[in-house]
Amino acid sequence: MFAPVYLDHNATTPLDPAVREAMLPYLDARFGNASSRHEYGRQARDAIDRARARVAAAVGAHPTEVVFTSGGSEANNLFLKGAAATMKPGVLAVSRMEHPCVREPAKQLARLGWQLEWIDVMPSGVVDSGQYAECLAKRPRMVSVMLANNETGAIQPIADLAAKARQAGAWFHTDAVQALGKVPVDFRALGVHAMTLSAHKIYGPLGAGALIVDKRVELSPLIAGGGQERGLRSGTENVAAIVGFGAACELAVQRLETEAMRQRSLRDDFEAALSDMQATVFAAGAPRLPGTSFFAFDGIDGETLVGKLDRAGFACASGSACSSADPEPSKTLLAMGVAPELARSAVRVSVGRGTSAEDMNRLIQALRQEVQALRGLAAMAV
Amino acid sequence: MFAPVYLDHNATTPLDPAVREAMLPYLDARFGNASSRHEYGRQARDAIDRARARVAAAVGAHPTEVVFTSGGSEANNLFLKGAAATMKPGVLAVSRMEHPCVREPAKQLARLGWQLEWIDVMPSGVVDSGQYAECLAKRPRMVSVMLANNETGAIQPIADLAAKARQAGAWFHTDAVQALGKVPVDFRALGVHAMTLSAHKIYGPLGAGALIVDKRVELSPLIAGGGQERGLRSGTENVAAIVGFGAACELAVQRLETEAMRQRSLRDDFEAALSDMQATVFAAGAPRLPGTSFFAFDGIDGETLVGKLDRAGFACASGSACSSADPEPSKTLLAMGVAPELARSAVRVSVGRGTSAEDMNRLIQALRQEVQALRGLAAMAV
Ligand SMILES: Cc1ncc(COP(=O)(O)O)c(C=O)c1O
Ligand SMILES: Cc1ncc(COP(=O)(O)O)c(C=O)c1O
Repeated sequence: MFAPVYLDHNATTPLDPAVREAMLPYLDARFGNASSRHEYGRQARDAIDRARARVAAAVGAHPTEVVFTSGGSEANNLFLKGAAATMKPGVLAVSRMEHPCVREPAKQLARLGWQLEWIDVMPSGVVDSGQYAECLAKRPRMVSVMLANNETGAIQPIADLAAKARQAGAWFHTDAVQALGKVPVDFRALGVHAMTLSAHKIYGPLGAGALIVDKRVELSPLIAGGGQERGLRSGTENVAAIVGFGAACELAVQRLETEAMRQRSLRDDFEAALSDMQATVFAAGAPRLPGTSFFAFDGIDGETLVGKLDRAGFACASGSACSSADPEPSKTLLAMGVAPELARSAVRVSVGRGTSAEDMNRLIQALRQEVQALRGLAAMAV
Repeated sequence: MFAPVYLDHNATTPLDPAVREAMLPYLDARFGNASSRHEYGRQARDAIDRARARVAAAVGAHPTEVVFTSGGSEANNLFLKGAAATMKPGVLAVSRMEHPCVREPAKQLARLGWQLEWIDVMPSGVVDSGQYAECLAKRPRMVSVMLANNETGAIQPIADLAAKARQAGAWFHTDAVQALGKVPVDFRALGVHAMTLSAHKIYGPLGAGALIVDKRVELSPLIAGGGQERGLRSGTENVAAIVGFGAACELAVQRLETEAMRQRSLRDDFEAALSDMQATVFAAGAPRLPGTSFFAFDGIDGETLVGKLDRAGFACASGSACSSADPEPSKTLLAMGVAPELARSAVRVSVGRGTSAEDMNRLIQALRQEVQALRGLAAMAV
């Protein structure tokens, strides 16, 4: 089979072989329901307990603070709607660059009477601290700002933002889905009340995520029922996925340092080539995830370029690849003040554990060709 | 490894080897995010489309009526809370024997101003049609009655109940999690507006379920975000689990007739032996799932007996095994008017594709021994 070079690790990652190995017994003889009080059930329960300890350890949290969910989207919805359900409607502050699975539940809350305040993003790709202070002056009950943006890779000063939110009396939540495994993530050091994780972004399986949540935060379950996950998330636990999530967390921590260095060097070489080709790299000056490049060639449609690269054997993303077909230009770029025309040219390359320097050299060659050809067409059209 | 005889198929089922085979490529080279617009993404999207068609075909629905969720609990919550969010609070009618993942969201709605009407269950294990008519007279906006009960296996007259609810102007939902694969399930013939399915009860994987839902039912998503599943369920799709669900549905339909016959015969022989031992079999006179026996030995605690059987190498359930530790006797039995003391003696044996006559004969022997020993103890205590 023809296997294109995969350069879309912010959308999802391949399962690490060690993670798959850890999971397979739970797709076979160890198939029990963790709530069953017999040997099969105990095996499943023990496996979940071990995975919970691993996930907690990876982010400096206590195992009892881990609520397993089906993924990052569910965890974000659980925090926002679950906490809102225990309060009177008030002010909710959310950054303009959040993933749709934070933005959309926030809008649902707005329809239920919450006053939604959007936290601005500076052209650098980082939240605007002056305007953030104005948002806090409105006394929000909840604040949500992501730790690292899925498109630009820009890392936000969460410890600082969370400290200010706490002083203002708000619960602070951070979506750490893109940060986990790429930069150190420490629940205590960040000082947040709640944090979202997702297994499939860290070489773990689809079907598992977590909300790490301080016990002081009262939550009403989004999925109510049998009372699993301390009553915060009912439903028969997806044991294999949870086991895989635990294994993936352990590996992520082990490999973080060497992989970050390796990927940063691949990314820097790639961006040097982009600069040669007169591309704009977004959020280039901000602290960023090591393996993410979000860039644009002026006058070349991003979708078109991604389509050309796809046919040439390179899997990249345009705009936000982890949500459904959305013809709008990236909301993150628009929030940064990027012109809509340039935003429509955006392409994302996110490297990963399997990416080699050779892959990147081939990508650069392909990009040069495609960009030249598309620029030629554009010139002819003038 | 010592493998106890698994007799708890209503809690969860082992993965069918053919289902596992179908899933493995999606835990390996076909790891793409179905929203990605490149080769890896298209492979994932195509696999989901094929699985959707299979799930729909298995229950006589249209593929566009299938909303994939993480499981049955989520689907039940999605229907109840998702539909409620689009209406003014009104009356909600739910049977007293529903699984907690229907009962608990119903109670959450009651806290939001809904008037909760409980539909009674007769001693036979079937809903009380006279009292049901009284519930409908209160003009509920939504009604939820399960197709087959997870504990007794009693099958409810859903086509009839749904027709009456429709006449009364209510949306009718049925939890078909336990029925699928054990008895024929036809969305159109049942005439329901929405129906819940779960993959892990039909030799499919944990992590996939579905709400089959008539397009006229307006739903607000429980998990909002990227807009997957026609905006009704956001979050990166669990491709491997969905593929497994599709494969499991196909197998379930193929094997239904022979397996139902085979399991019914195992069950009938087993219940003949139970009757010899003076056990009470619950809902014995009702139309029932072929492979479920829910029974009690008067004066012998169900938990204790299940513990003894576990140590003797048989995995059975007491009360409702698919929810978390719950020391209360079965709500289904209490709703049927069974005395709490007898309800505390309840044990469930649910056979499956892997169960042999030899397994059941060994179980009967073990039961005779344990019951005799426990009765001896009880007699001594007097
Ligand atoms: C920043 C961010 N948050 C949340 C999500 C959603 O996570 P999941 O796909 O596990 O639902 C994603 C990716 O899809 C993401 O990039
Ligand atoms: C009748 C019934 N409905 C719903 C569920 C929940 O399904 P899931 O485990 O897929 O969340 C179960 C079993 O757990 C069940 O028996």
